[in-house]
Amino acid sequence: MSLRTTGEVFLVGAGPGDPELLTLKALRVLRDADVVLHDDLISQEILALIPATAVKISVGKRCGAARVSQEETNAMLVAYAKSGRTVVRLKSGDPMLFGRAGEEIDALRRAGIEFEVVPGISTAFAAAAALETSLTDRRKASRVVFSTGHRAQPGASEGTTQVIYMPGPDYSAMVARLLGDGFDAETPCAVVSAASRETQTMIRTTLGSLPNMVPLPAPSILLVGEALGASEEAAVGDRIQMKALATNMSVNSD
Amino acid sequence: MSLRTTGEVFLVGAGPGDPELLTLKALRVLRDADVVLHDDLISQEILALIPATAVKISVGKRCGAARVSQEETNAMLVAYAKSGRTVVRLKSGDPMLFGRAGEEIDALRRAGIEFEVVPGISTAFAAAAALETSLTDRRKASRVVFSTGHRAQPGASEGTTQVIYMPGPDYSAMVARLLGDGFDAETPCAVVSAASRETQTMIRTTLGSLPNMVPLPAPSILLVGEALGASEEAAVGDRIQMKALATNMSVNSD
Repeated sequence: MSLRTTGEVFLVGAGPGDPELLTLKALRVLRDADVVLHDDLISQEILALIPATAVKISVGKRCGAARVSQEETNAMLVAYAKSGRTVVRLKSGDPMLFGRAGEEIDALRRAGIEFEVVPGISTAFAAAAALETSLTDRRKASRVVFSTGHRAQPGASEGTTQVIYMPGPDYSAMVARLLGDGFDAETPCAVVSAASRETQTMIRTTLGSLPNMVPLPAPSILLVGEALGASEEAAVGDRIQMKALATNMSVNSD
Repeated sequence: MSLRTTGEVFLVGAGPGDPELLTLKALRVLRDADVVLHDDLISQEILALIPATAVKISVGKRCGAARVSQEETNAMLVAYAKSGRTVVRLKSGDPMLFGRAGEEIDALRRAGIEFEVVPGISTAFAAAAALETSLTDRRKASRVVFSTGHRAQPGASEGTTQVIYMPGPDYSAMVARLLGDGFDAETPCAVVSAASRETQTMIRTTLGSLPNMVPLPAPSILLVGEALGASEEAAVGDRIQMKALATNMSVNSD
């Protein structure tokens, strides 16, 4: 038995926000943590699960404004592990999608620190659950593409559902880009804000009508494709959509 | 307070197999179930969490051979709910990706039965965790496409990671299709079998070399793209790859 002086690092997915959507493993690892470096977007209910004795540090970005640089985060992960602590890097959603896990993993490898990745529920799946809509309803889609609002979109493609993380509040610009990529204005789409959280709201509409909607607050996700209209009924979200429409109409009539 | 005579249905993601990758909500719902209709691929450890008093029915398909038709599954969901039971439809991975949740949801809506979707960890995320590789390492990829081995693949695209569920054992045919779609033979790729389970195995190689490998057993998943080679080191899986290579070489020398 060797004396272990270096701590281990866990890159843990916190899921979309509802603490009940943590995995059993994420909860176990979180409860054993000496140090937790967490994204800004992690919900208060999840932060409340961290032991009171643990060091809690927010290393997140909000609206692109980094309070802690990626290099500082990498350095903290390494330094805390070297001091013998069990370190959790708690990331929104799943750690291996649209985070900077690659850079953190490289830093840990260079420093010879053991680490483990614990998956989490990515927001797309919480959004699909909220919309009660399969991302790949076989009557409409056989593929799904995950991208972010910051990057160029792939062209429209038959049978493909597009999931766009962080679409931003400028629906007109986003829709103009998608129409330019060959999407039809009649393509069903949905926006889900704060998926799985108590403040969750949704819009279900078509690409052509999306710019008429009052933008939902961040964090949000945009889903586009025929699968969004696959169900015979789309009762969910209709009330919210009508409310958004009504609000928007009163804004327009000012 | 109204007397509730109709039961509720929960479409629940069981995740990739490790019972610790269940969400807290999935575990809670499973423990309250009167009836569980589950896929064949659900691991024994997860089935063991179902209360002994609950009716357990396997409605899964194995290798495409349906033992219970989709229509029969839909009818059972409706009938058990109408009899006042709390029904869980337990699906591998996430319910909204490559299942037939769309058809089950339509059947429930037509019958006027309340239902809720509980997300799960899809295999791709367990595979990425096992490979210690970000699906969207920003140095290499900004998009990820999820598809299945049965359907036509989209063309190769710069900065895109392809995740192919159920690639099947014929790596030569799969690689020929991907090379035909414009992928380079040097593109890094990986296969993960039984992601997150005790029997998990992995291959890390390039598309051109994949056909030389002994196919890993189902369930498996294929990941293709520059992101798979993004890390400075890819120590994980090398031992397994070498073993697969050695086995294959001895097969070839027969």
